[in-house]
Parts: sequence; C-alpha cells; structure tokens
Amino acid sequence: MTLTTEVLPRGLDGVAVSDTSVSDVDGEAGFYHYRGVDPTSFVRTGSYEDAWHLLLEGAQPAPAGFGDEVRAAMRMPPVLRDSLAPIAALGPPGSIDVLRTAVSAAGVAIGCRPWTEQDEATTREQILRIASLTPVLTAALYRLARRLDIVDPMPDLSFAANYLYMINGVVPAPERVRALETYLILAADHGFCNSTFAERVIASSGADVGAALSGAIGALSGPLHGGAIDRVPSMLASIGDASRVEPWMKDKLDRGERLMGFGHAVYRTLDPRNTVLRELAQTIDDPRVALAIEVEKTGVRLLNDRKADKHREANIELYAGVVLDYAGVPEELFACTFPVARMAGWSANLIEQIEHNRIFRPAAHYVGPTPR
Amino acid sequence: MTLTTEVLPRGLDGVAVSDTSVSDVDGEAGFYHYRGVDPTSFVRTGSYEDAWHLLLEGAQPAPAGFGDEVRAAMRMPPVLRDSLAPIAALGPPGSIDVLRTAVSAAGVAIGCRPWTEQDEATTREQILRIASLTPVLTAALYRLARRLDIVDPMPDLSFAANYLYMINGVVPAPERVRALETYLILAADHGFCNSTFAERVIASSGADVGAALSGAIGALSGPLHGGAIDRVPSMLASIGDASRVEPWMKDKLDRGERLMGFGHAVYRTLDPRNTVLRELAQTIDDPRVALAIEVEKTGVRLLNDRKADKHREANIELYAGVVLDYAGVPEELFACTFPVARMAGWSANLIEQIEHNRIFRPAAHYVGPTPR
Repeated sequence: MTLTTEVLPRGLDGVAVSDTSVSDVDGEAGFYHYRGVDPTSFVRTGSYEDAWHLLLEGAQPAPAGFGDEVRAAMRMPPVLRDSLAPIAALGPPGSIDVLRTAVSAAGVAIGCRPWTEQDEATTREQILRIASLTPVLTAALYRLARRLDIVDPMPDLSFAANYLYMINGVVPAPERVRALETYLILAADHGFCNSTFAERVIASSGADVGAALSGAIGALSGPLHGGAIDRVPSMLASIGDASRVEPWMKDKLDRGERLMGFGHAVYRTLDPRNTVLRELAQTIDDPRVALAIEVEKTGVRLLNDRKADKHREANIELYAGVVLDYAGVPEELFACTFPVARMAGWSANLIEQIEHNRIFRPAAHYVGPTPR
Repeated sequence: MTLTTEVLPRGLDGVAVSDTSVSDVDGEAGFYHYRGVDPTSFVRTGSYEDAWHLLLEGAQPAPAGFGDEVRAAMRMPPVLRDSLAPIAALGPPGSIDVLRTAVSAAGVAIGCRPWTEQDEATTREQILRIASLTPVLTAALYRLARRLDIVDPMPDLSFAANYLYMINGVVPAPERVRALETYLILAADHGFCNSTFAERVIASSGADVGAALSGAIGALSGPLHGGAIDRVPSMLASIGDASRVEPWMKDKLDRGERLMGFGHAVYRTLDPRNTVLRELAQTIDDPRVALAIEVEKTGVRLLNDRKADKHREANIELYAGVVLDYAGVPEELFACTFPVARMAGWSANLIEQIEHNRIFRPAAHYVGPTPR
C-alpha cells in the first residue's frame, strides 16, 4: 500500500498512528482522561505520585513503595552533579534548552543503553530515574544560574513538595504544595501531543530512554506546542488593571498579534484544565486573579466576534501562572515546570511504545529535480 | 477525515507524510540521489562541502564562500568549550549519547531560540553552526576522554581533513582524507529515515534547531536505525580468517543471532553505497578486506537460503569500518562519524521543514479502560 501526501492531512492532523491505553482527549466534549480516570475529579484527592502511578500502571492510589522508588531515583550521580555548573552557564536561568541538555546528560550519567539491548526492568528503572531527576535538575540548574548552592531533595517530602523545597531551600506550606500539585497532575499527560509523538519516534529506533526524553523536552519547547505559560504574567502586568483590558486586547488583535492563554489545538470548547485552575486561583489572594477573569471574559468575546470559523476559549495557561506563582515557583521556571509535570505521561508512553514497538519510518513524496 | 491504525501500516511504513526535494531512495532499483544527483558518481569528483551545498541549495560545486562559512562556523564559543570536559566525563570515549548532549549544549551556547521567533537567515546560520560544530565536538570529546588536549580546526583544511586533524592532531595524507570524504558523502543523506523524521517532528513545534538536531542524533543512536557500523570490525576480528567464515556465520544464524553489515529497511537489492565502499576498500592494503569480501559472499548466500521471503545483501556498514580505519578514524568514533556525515542532510531537511511547516500532531486510537 502506498499512501501519499495527497490523501493524508498535513502534519498527520487527526491521523491515528498508534494504539494507546495511556490517555485520551475528546476535543469536542472538552474532556480528557488518564486510563479512564478524569484528572479534574482525581485532582481533588490524589497526589502527583498517584497520577503518575495511574498513568504507568492503570491503578491508583500509588502503593507506598512507588513514592519511595521515586525519592530514591532523585539521587544525582556525582558525575552528573559535576557537569551541572558548566551546563547551567550555557544559558539564562530557567532555560528549557539548558534543562534539555541536562536531561540528556542524566541519560548518559545513569548508563542508559539502547533499550533493545537490555531487559525491560532496567529500561523501566532508567525511565523512572530520568523522570525523577528532572525536577532535581530543574531546581539545581536554576540555583546554580542564580549563584546559589544546590539543595538536595529531602527524604520525607512528596514529589511536589520536594520540587519547591529544592528551588527555594525552604519546606513549603501544605497549601502551596497543593497548588503546585494541582498543576502537575492536570499537566501530567494529554494524549498524543507533538512531544509524546517525538519521544515515541526516537524510542522506536531502539534509542535509549535518555535520547527519547531529552527529545521530548526539545519538542515541548516549541511555541506551537509548549506555548505561552511564561508569557501570561507579562501580559497581565502589561495590561495593568481591569479598566484597560478591552482596549489593550483590541489593540493587540488589531495589530494581528496573538493573545497569550487562549486557544487550543484540540479543544473546541472549554479546556477542562482551565476550569480547575480558575477555581483554584479564585481562592488565592492576588489582584491578578480578578484581572485574569476579566481577560478571559473579554478575550473569549473578542476572539469569537472576529474569528467565526473556530470557537476559542482560554486554555490551561491563563491561570497557571498565578497558581504557580502562589505555589512558590519563580516565573523563570514556569516553562521548565511543564516538562517536570509531563514526565509522568512521557514515561508511561515510552513504556507503551517499547512494549509494542515498530520503528516509525514513514516515506516522503519526492517533488525535486528528476535524477539525470 | 479520521484514519485509524486499522488502515495505516504500523510505524507509518511507506506512508508519505511530507513532500520533499532533498533526497530520495528507490529501494527496488537500488538507487538513491541528492536533489536528482547520484552520490555514487558524484563522490568520484566532489567534496563533502559540495555534497552539503547540493543538499542545501540544489547546486554544486559549492562556491568558495560556502567552505569559508563552514570553517568560520567551526569556532567554539568559550562557554561551550568550558562545558566539554565535564560532559565528556559522563560516558566512555566515542559515546554517541555524549555527543548528543554536547550538540544540545552547542544549541544553547550559540543562542538558538524558537525558529518561529527569529528570521530565516538567523535560523539557517544556527543550523550551519551546529552542523559545523559537530565534528569539532566529536573530536574534542574524544580527546578529552583520552586525557588529550583539544586540537582546534586549521583554517586551510577541508571539512573532512579537519575532522581527521582534530581527532589525531596530525595533518592527514590526501588519500586518507579522500577515504573519509567518500564515506561522509555517501552517508550525507538518505531519504526520510527515522532520525530525519524525528528532527522534523521536533522542529515542527517551533522548537529551536538545537533541539531538532540533538533529537536527530538521539534517534540515529538506536540499533534499529543507526545500526552496527562499530560492530562489524569486532565481527571480522572474531571470525579471524577466511577459512572460518562459513562455519562462524552458520553458527550465528543457527543461534538466531543477527549478522552485522547485512540487510536494509528499504533496499531490496544491492545497497549502492556498499558497491562504492567495497571498490575503495579493495585499494587498501588490509587483510580484513579479503575477509570482508568472503563474509559478504557467504553471508548473502546463507541469508537468502534461509529467508526466502525477503532478499538480503550487504549494507553500507560492511566495508565502512575498513575504510574509516584506513582514513584514521579510531574505531570508538565510528558511531559518531555517522551523525557527523548526516548533518548535511539533516540541515537541508530542517530548512525544508521550516519553510513549509505544519506541526506534526497525529492522534492515537485509545484502547484502554472506558472513562467512568
């Protein structure tokens, strides 16, 4: 069989290229789930570890041993620690490209080899190791770039609490941890997005899991995918107060610029993650919450007045900044906090790819000069 | 339109997911080309720079300015140089995973940003910069791992000569350069392979070119793709001499093991690159050449006697080791020399992807537990 670009939608948009049991998104209904479980309900009681275990194994809550496994996996090999200061020096604090480099380094440091050449248990252990090291590396790189000493994880803290502790060097209050955890759980996976596909394409060649997970961070860093989470705060700051929302947004749209925090590739209705984060934001004492609500209302109205072709709503990013700020994540780390969260979904997708592997090797339709 | 996994071949095998003008492979005819030019003829007169320019611009020979541009792009930023010793220390000499990490670091060091947020000339310059730095990094990491000083490129040498010079610290003889250049040109591109696809998937999100090119190295490192170039020499060493070829290979096959240097995903007849490298090898005074010829003859006979379903021939890797060894590339660097060569094709594919971009965002067919 030969299928050509004439029959396939560009970018394989909507084309099912694999079976999956990990997660799914129904864009029309505004619904997504992890192995059948609705994260927007789950998030009220579960921990990030529970969500991660659910994505990996299809069962929750996570057994106590899973949290222990994650905490043990957070230990940094000395050779990796030694590489972090020069890697942090490559870019600005909070650079997702620096994080991608360090995650690639972590894959080497823990001895990843092609998964085709080792047993499944070893591969699973390496995946968990890299995923667990990602918040450790994010925090360490940030502190090094700020000329602060690295803070090692604390044995008794949860994944979310440890992330805040390693960034700030202070044990965080439970309500701050809960705010971060809400974001981490909601962002832990989201169907067959571009970075998940990139990860699976890389792993499908038999490449080691460090190659696949650093490649996924690379894909996520693209503005057409990972997006604008770290740009919403500056938008709110630039608007200033509620009276200026409508003229500011109209002016942006008149100049053909994009509004941050709106629109989604798959959702044609409310992004269910947005609803949860808005509710959470409304419990936070921050004047930007009222502003963001006004921005959401006005933005949805203006966007849909102008573009009748496709309904638009606010996305996960509009309230994420306020929530992460409240949790104690510095604005410079908003971008890196997305891959920290997504490691749960990527790890589950990676294991699934390896269990049912077939190398992704599509063809292209050659349209250049005819061979002489 | 919704297409599902029921109608698409697994791994998108043979499915044209993009138009391309860069290169094409005709597996039935045993023919491939770069923008209409046959590399197996081109290789007799052209340089690697010519092949690279051909892949990028569709014209050859390369103007003098292109070689100058590549040489200038080989300069290492100090912050990158400072990171290399600790990055080299992460793995063994010649590790392709270490190279992937250093190429990711190079992307950060030269200030790559999402290509959607800068002009095309800047993006092209960054692509050329990373591709030109790849042999520099490969040689530097190898020397650091061997506790030798880094050797900087020499202004008057060609790309191929500089690679050997930076590895060994000695200006190489022209016939050695020519041997390496033959390999580099033949391996410069090869249609829409897994790593090229991975690179395009990553870049399609708007991610910077450092993310795309380090991701491509990651994909190439998988044994189902990049393969066995560094394992052929140990196979030849283990066979020892011509009289042992048949029993050795029969024994391997009887135990269900894979023979190195045979078979290809796309070619159903002779790999045209193999023919060129065999001819070149036959001019080299090395007892392993006669052994490799015997291995090729016997291997093809045994494989095709056993597996009647699919015709098998020797691939590019069978003679590549002998040729690279003659050129002066240490065996530990065989694996990394493949991405050094392939940077030409990856750079051309990356520019093409960016010029006609659409984000790759396929779907998956959810087969897990039904949402409650």
